[in-house]
This record gives sequence, C-alpha cells and structure tokens, in this order.
Amino acid sequence: MEVYGIFGRDRIELFETMGGELAFVHRIEKVHFHQRSKYQDILVGENKLHGKMLILDNVFNVSNLMEAYYHEPMAHIPVGLVNKEKINALIIGGGDFGVAYHLLKHKNIEKAVMCELDPMVIEVCRKYFPWAEKCEKDKRFELFVGDGFKYLDNLQENSLDVIIIDSTDPFDKAGILISEEFYTKLKRVIKESGVIIQLISDFHIYGECYSYVLPRVEKHFEGVKVIGVPVAFYITGYTGMILLSKRKENLYAENIPENFVSNIPDVKTLTDKNIRAFLELPPVLKDFVNKYLSK
Amino acid sequence: MEVYGIFGRDRIELFETMGGELAFVHRIEKVHFHQRSKYQDILVGENKLHGKMLILDNVFNVSNLMEAYYHEPMAHIPVGLVNKEKINALIIGGGDFGVAYHLLKHKNIEKAVMCELDPMVIEVCRKYFPWAEKCEKDKRFELFVGDGFKYLDNLQENSLDVIIIDSTDPFDKAGILISEEFYTKLKRVIKESGVIIQLISDFHIYGECYSYVLPRVEKHFEGVKVIGVPVAFYITGYTGMILLSKRKENLYAENIPENFVSNIPDVKTLTDKNIRAFLELPPVLKDFVNKYLSK
Repeated sequence: MEVYGIFGRDRIELFETMGGELAFVHRIEKVHFHQRSKYQDILVGENKLHGKMLILDNVFNVSNLMEAYYHEPMAHIPVGLVNKEKINALIIGGGDFGVAYHLLKHKNIEKAVMCELDPMVIEVCRKYFPWAEKCEKDKRFELFVGDGFKYLDNLQENSLDVIIIDSTDPFDKAGILISEEFYTKLKRVIKESGVIIQLISDFHIYGECYSYVLPRVEKHFEGVKVIGVPVAFYITGYTGMILLSKRKENLYAENIPENFVSNIPDVKTLTDKNIRAFLELPPVLKDFVNKYLSK
Repeated sequence: MEVYGIFGRDRIELFETMGGELAFVHRIEKVHFHQRSKYQDILVGENKLHGKMLILDNVFNVSNLMEAYYHEPMAHIPVGLVNKEKINALIIGGGDFGVAYHLLKHKNIEKAVMCELDPMVIEVCRKYFPWAEKCEKDKRFELFVGDGFKYLDNLQENSLDVIIIDSTDPFDKAGILISEEFYTKLKRVIKESGVIIQLISDFHIYGECYSYVLPRVEKHFEGVKVIGVPVAFYITGYTGMILLSKRKENLYAENIPENFVSNIPDVKTLTDKNIRAFLELPPVLKDFVNKYLSK
C-alpha cells in the first residue's frame, strides 16, 4: 500500500515513527520556521487541527491545541504535592515556556528559573507561541540559557522545592538527563521536602527505558513514583513521568490540598479527581513498572 | 515528503487518516485475514507492538495490546453505576466479544445478549482473538446475529439494566445508531434505573458529531453525561462516550461502590480513582460539550 498519496502530494507531511511499529503523520499546511540550531532541527508548522506545532528533530513536541495536556500535569502536580507557602522552582529544558507559564499561575511560586540549552528554541517560541510573553513579564521568572546539567553545580545544597525536567524524550541527545551523575546533582539541590518531576516516555512504545531509569533513580531517591498522564496526541493513552523525592511520603496523593486544581485559574485539562488518578497507575502499567522497582 | 518509504516497501502499512489533518500508520507484518463482508472490509493484521489488530474499513478497532483500555470502561462503568444484584445487559455491536468478556466478570450479570450485525466479524474474532471462547462457555451469554436496531423491537418495555453500544464510530454506516429513532427505541427498553453507554468519538478530531448527537439525546433522556476515557492508541488522549439514563441521578459517580474496581478480577486499565475521574470531563472538554447541552 502506498501511503504518500493520502494527503495529496502538494502538502508537507510530517512523519514521526514511533519505535518502528507505528507512525504518526501530521499535515503541515505552512512552515513558519525551519532551521537547524547547534543542537537540533527546529520546525514550527501549521496544522489546521493543532494550530502551531513545535517539532524538534522530527518529533512532535507541543502545539497550541494540546499543550495544556502536557504542561499542566508537569507544572501542577509537583506544586500540589509540595504544598508550601513559598516555592523555589527550577525547570530544566522547557524552552517553549509552557511549563513556566502554568507554574507561575501559583501565587506560592517565589521564583522559577528556566534553564534551556538551545537559544534558538527560546527565540522561536517567543515568536510563535504565547507562553513566553506572560513569563517574561513576571518578576518571579528568570531565564538561564545554558546547560541545565552544569547549572545545577551553581546552586546551593537543599535549595529547591520543585524541579521539573521537561526535555525531549530522554534517550540519545537528552540521555544525560537520565544519568547517574544527573540524579546525584538533583539530589544535592532538592530540599528534603522537595519534589522532582521528569518526563520519561511512553510505556507501550518506549517501555524499555524504564528498565534502566528506574533502578538508577532508586539508588538516589527514597521516593520514586511512576505516574501515567493521558497527554492528548501523544498516542498511547498514558505518557509516563517519574516523581522523585528524598522521602517517599512527599509523593502521597493525599498531600495535594482538596480543591487544589479548582483553585488554579483557567486550568484546562486537570480536575481534582484526575490529578489524583494520574498518581496511581492502572494495574497493567503498575505491573509493568514494578518489574523494575525493588520496593 | 514521500511517506511510504519509511517502513520499507516490503511491508504492508495500514494508514488511517483522522479527519484529514493527521494520520496513524501501523506496520502490519503479516495479514492473518483480509476479506470484504456484506457490511465492511475486515482485516486482521499482526503488528509487533500490538499483537493482532482488528481493522474495519481501514480503521483500527482493537488489538491484543490495547483492548482493555477500551473494553473495560465500556463494560464496567455502566455496571458500577447501576450497582444492582441482578443485571440484564444488552450489547449492540461488540462483535469482537471484548465488551462481553469483561462484562461477564461481574457475578451480578444475569444475562448478557450480544447483538452483532456482521457474521464475518464474529467468525474472525472467534478465530483470532481470545475473548469469544470465554463468553461462549458462559451460560449467561447469548449471541444474536442480526441488526441491533431491529432487535430492540423484540424486547419488552423497561426490561434492560445496561445497554452498551459498541459500534464503529457512529458516522456513515453506523449513523443509524445516533438517530432519533434509535434513541426512542433505547428509551423504551431501558429500565428507569438503567444506564446506557455509547461510544461517540474523539473530541478533538471528530468533535463536530457532538453538535448533533447531544441535542438529540437530550430530547429522550433526562440523564446525559459525556465522559472522557484515555483509550491507548486512539491518539488524542480522551475518547468520548456518552452515558444516558431516564434519571440524571443514575449517572452520579457516587453510585459506584467504593471498591468496585478493585473487586473486578484481573482488571487492567481501571482503578477506583480513574473510573471516577473519567466521569468528570476536564474543563477544556466540559466547555466544549456544554456548548451543545441545554442543561
């Protein structure tokens, strides 16, 4: 079966293979931006359904349509779990400003530093997506353009309440973000009461990465919890993220205040019920990750 | 960009366009069965990730890998809501036997009739999928091969506790299953305390159908609730289903017994938390469906 004819040959088709067994194709009607940075291929395309889409190295990252499905859980879950009057937060990656935008909705965020490696991503997202503008007007927001891995060395011990690692899938290029050395650094800077959240990957397609990430994080953190978030357009129903903490009780769903989500302005994809549901994997996924966890 | 080369030309690629703006491609390594029935094109293919996949008219329906993400909510949500000692259930469609299989796990199911139009679907699913065998050994199970729309006329008024409409997307061919006449028939046979669940469609890709389905069902049922279920591999994170009932209080999440899900044997994708979360749409989807609901 020849596939290319379906959308017609006059359109650009973005083709993302997922582990070789399936693929996801988007029709891109207009290319707003396409250039190679020092680090990656960056494309901003227009799709009728999505609006603008950010595509890095041919992998669909976020779009106007679906950004909240991804950014809201990343931003709000750790804040809800930490639940303190003043929260000092660090975002590693997140160059589209989306996580920062949602994070800054919380009045108890005292400071949010976003540490993005690729200046071209920042420039492009400032221009084509709405989140940067609101962040950069906020005095609590600070941008550091550079390597998050190195940046951690500048920070004081036990100084952060929340760390959000919002990278591309942590294989290949972003592989350093699942290294022993990285977790050692995270452990140094996160407070005893703090919570870290990191995108890992899809359970069904890239499940293998859990086999090496989970034993690794367990060496460094008493609290390790894999959560499943249904990120729209990430295909398999549940995208896996990990929560890390020095104490396992920091990751109990009960720590999230009762009406936590209802009190977030203009929240789109979360409810006070589903945020708690995400923190408990369904049995099929729990069985899967438990193979790699000792406790 | 020519797409067909990606998986190599020696493989079959199943290509499903979703509303023209995106598409989903599966590599099919082996075709177990491919034939046109009186009603549709039926393909059973092998994909490394999914195992066997059932593909009807080029649309991916279910696979070994993901069936529970779809079948479990369809089967268990109405049973949980109705919560009676004896439940008389009807499945319209569902020819893969998956919904029936999960439904029959409940001891309070007294009778479950599955009414499938296409005998070839039944034959194929008996041969290639595991669910039929377990159903057909169960004395409470009854198969009717024929038109569910007409079958409803044979039933007594107020005789059913649960009706599950498990069809292909209810446009085109299955369009009769969202007709005024169909809802009139359903209303006649469902009990005052009964609950109906129907697959509608994806909110983001086929959202338009809510604009005509919702005003229609509101004419017939006091209880109308749209729910969002993250069906793995159905792409957009939440697949929409509707719950219908003669009384709106039949659809309250509180009706589901506390440990309802934990007590279902070998449940895979549900938890007692997420089943309740599914019953409350996230704000972005609630706002969307509320445009079409009067109450």
